[in-house]
Amino acid sequence: MKNILLFITIALLVLGCQNNSTVKNIVSEEGPKPFPNGKIIDLTHTFSRESIYWVTAKEFELDTVAYGDTDNGFFYSANNFTTAEHGGTHIDAPIHFAKNAQTVDEIPLENLIGSAIKIVVSEKALKNPDYLISVEDFTDWENTNGKIPDGSIVLLETGYSTFYPDKIKYLGTDERGPDAVAKLHFPGLSPEAAKWLVNNRNIHAIGLDTPSIDFGQSKLFESHVTLLSKNIPAFENVTNLDKLPIKGFSVIALPMKIKGGSGGPLRIVAIL
Amino acid sequence: MKNILLFITIALLVLGCQNNSTVKNIVSEEGPKPFPNGKIIDLTHTFSRESIYWVTAKEFELDTVAYGDTDNGFFYSANNFTTAEHGGTHIDAPIHFAKNAQTVDEIPLENLIGSAIKIVVSEKALKNPDYLISVEDFTDWENTNGKIPDGSIVLLETGYSTFYPDKIKYLGTDERGPDAVAKLHFPGLSPEAAKWLVNNRNIHAIGLDTPSIDFGQSKLFESHVTLLSKNIPAFENVTNLDKLPIKGFSVIALPMKIKGGSGGPLRIVAIL
Ligand SMILES: [Zn+2]
Ligand SMILES: [Zn+2]
Repeated sequence: MKNILLFITIALLVLGCQNNSTVKNIVSEEGPKPFPNGKIIDLTHTFSRESIYWVTAKEFELDTVAYGDTDNGFFYSANNFTTAEHGGTHIDAPIHFAKNAQTVDEIPLENLIGSAIKIVVSEKALKNPDYLISVEDFTDWENTNGKIPDGSIVLLETGYSTFYPDKIKYLGTDERGPDAVAKLHFPGLSPEAAKWLVNNRNIHAIGLDTPSIDFGQSKLFESHVTLLSKNIPAFENVTNLDKLPIKGFSVIALPMKIKGGSGGPLRIVAIL
Repeated sequence: MKNILLFITIALLVLGCQNNSTVKNIVSEEGPKPFPNGKIIDLTHTFSRESIYWVTAKEFELDTVAYGDTDNGFFYSANNFTTAEHGGTHIDAPIHFAKNAQTVDEIPLENLIGSAIKIVVSEKALKNPDYLISVEDFTDWENTNGKIPDGSIVLLETGYSTFYPDKIKYLGTDERGPDAVAKLHFPGLSPEAAKWLVNNRNIHAIGLDTPSIDFGQSKLFESHVTLLSKNIPAFENVTNLDKLPIKGFSVIALPMKIKGGSGGPLRIVAIL
């Protein structure tokens, strides 16, 4: 009798374990979970005549083709536009600074969609428009948060997006043309930190809230060369980074798919 | 002795059950789950001179600004481009055919990212380039799969993307200009089905693998007017729909954020 009771107990426990996994299967077969599973935040500036472009690049221009009621009774509006690939919120494809590297249409989507972290340097950068984000800024983040996870998209918050589209505050100058290049002042990633990242960490992409991953006074664009040569694309002129936590969120960065493009307009969002 | 063995067996089973849930908790508390949680499929055609545009619209044009080694020792490439908003894989914003409706930068991201379903009409559409997707095509899908879930992104597969960029097969003509409009032949959504969708179902967006949500022979673009008046954006010239299941997947459709735009280049992906 005692043995029978024990047998029943064992049988119930075994069934209990099986039931758990049955429930799990039913739940996962009920259909996809809601997607996105969190709040969406747009990290993109709009494109308009105000959009900030490199001082030597063709700015965004929208031409109205139609706007109004048609003879057939319906309303109709449509436009054409012209732009440089690199302006407003955009992506730098590896080939922008690395021969034979990926063009914008060739960047794997796996680099552009995934878990992200944020490193904040606003306090230092807002005091110094020539601020260079250092290796120490990364190791400081790691001391608190642990090693940057493999495959992360890394966002750098300098605080400069609040100045956009004020050219004097955001770029350092509102002049345009080749002579204005020397007057550019805004923070960026130091060449040393770019090298540290590609040699010591495994990141999928990088982005920041200034016009360029190299700082305004850069002459050799070494951070571009270092990152892009390793097929790590860069997102430039992003915004709303202050609305993100420093880890535990995802980024979706989808560029216009220009065949052979060196970059292009980017729509970038975060999911919290 | 027998009882001791049974006791040990029970103890092991109990521990086994507990261990399972302990492992589960550790996994879910370790941080965000990998994102995306599935295979990514690109539903976007590349933009090039080959890209298909409306016969009266300005086609895509890429101008090389720089390509090659610079005097400073680094490689550099950059381009400008010009395009109509409506061409290649693109979005129709509500204002395209609905006065005072949302411009492309105003479309809520919640409409553009979410669960999706697919309705296949290829067998009928490939036999008839003037095929109109009917209410019955939707109710047939529902008879097998249940009611289209609230908030779905609905994709319509006609099979025409395999013809892209062959203008004669895809558009019905390779002529351009106002006189070519009457020669357009490709399938689309019937005005009745568009009305049925907005009156009876609650969808977030719609998309298909032809140049227009209205079929080629449409004169009044009634499906556009019906959908866009209800702020349901349309994705046009999408591709790779044959790689998707008919339900249980997600879509991320991120258009270029053109201030006041009636539409624009779209990068659209699915997550299985
Ligand atoms: Zn750039
Ligand atoms: Zn369109």
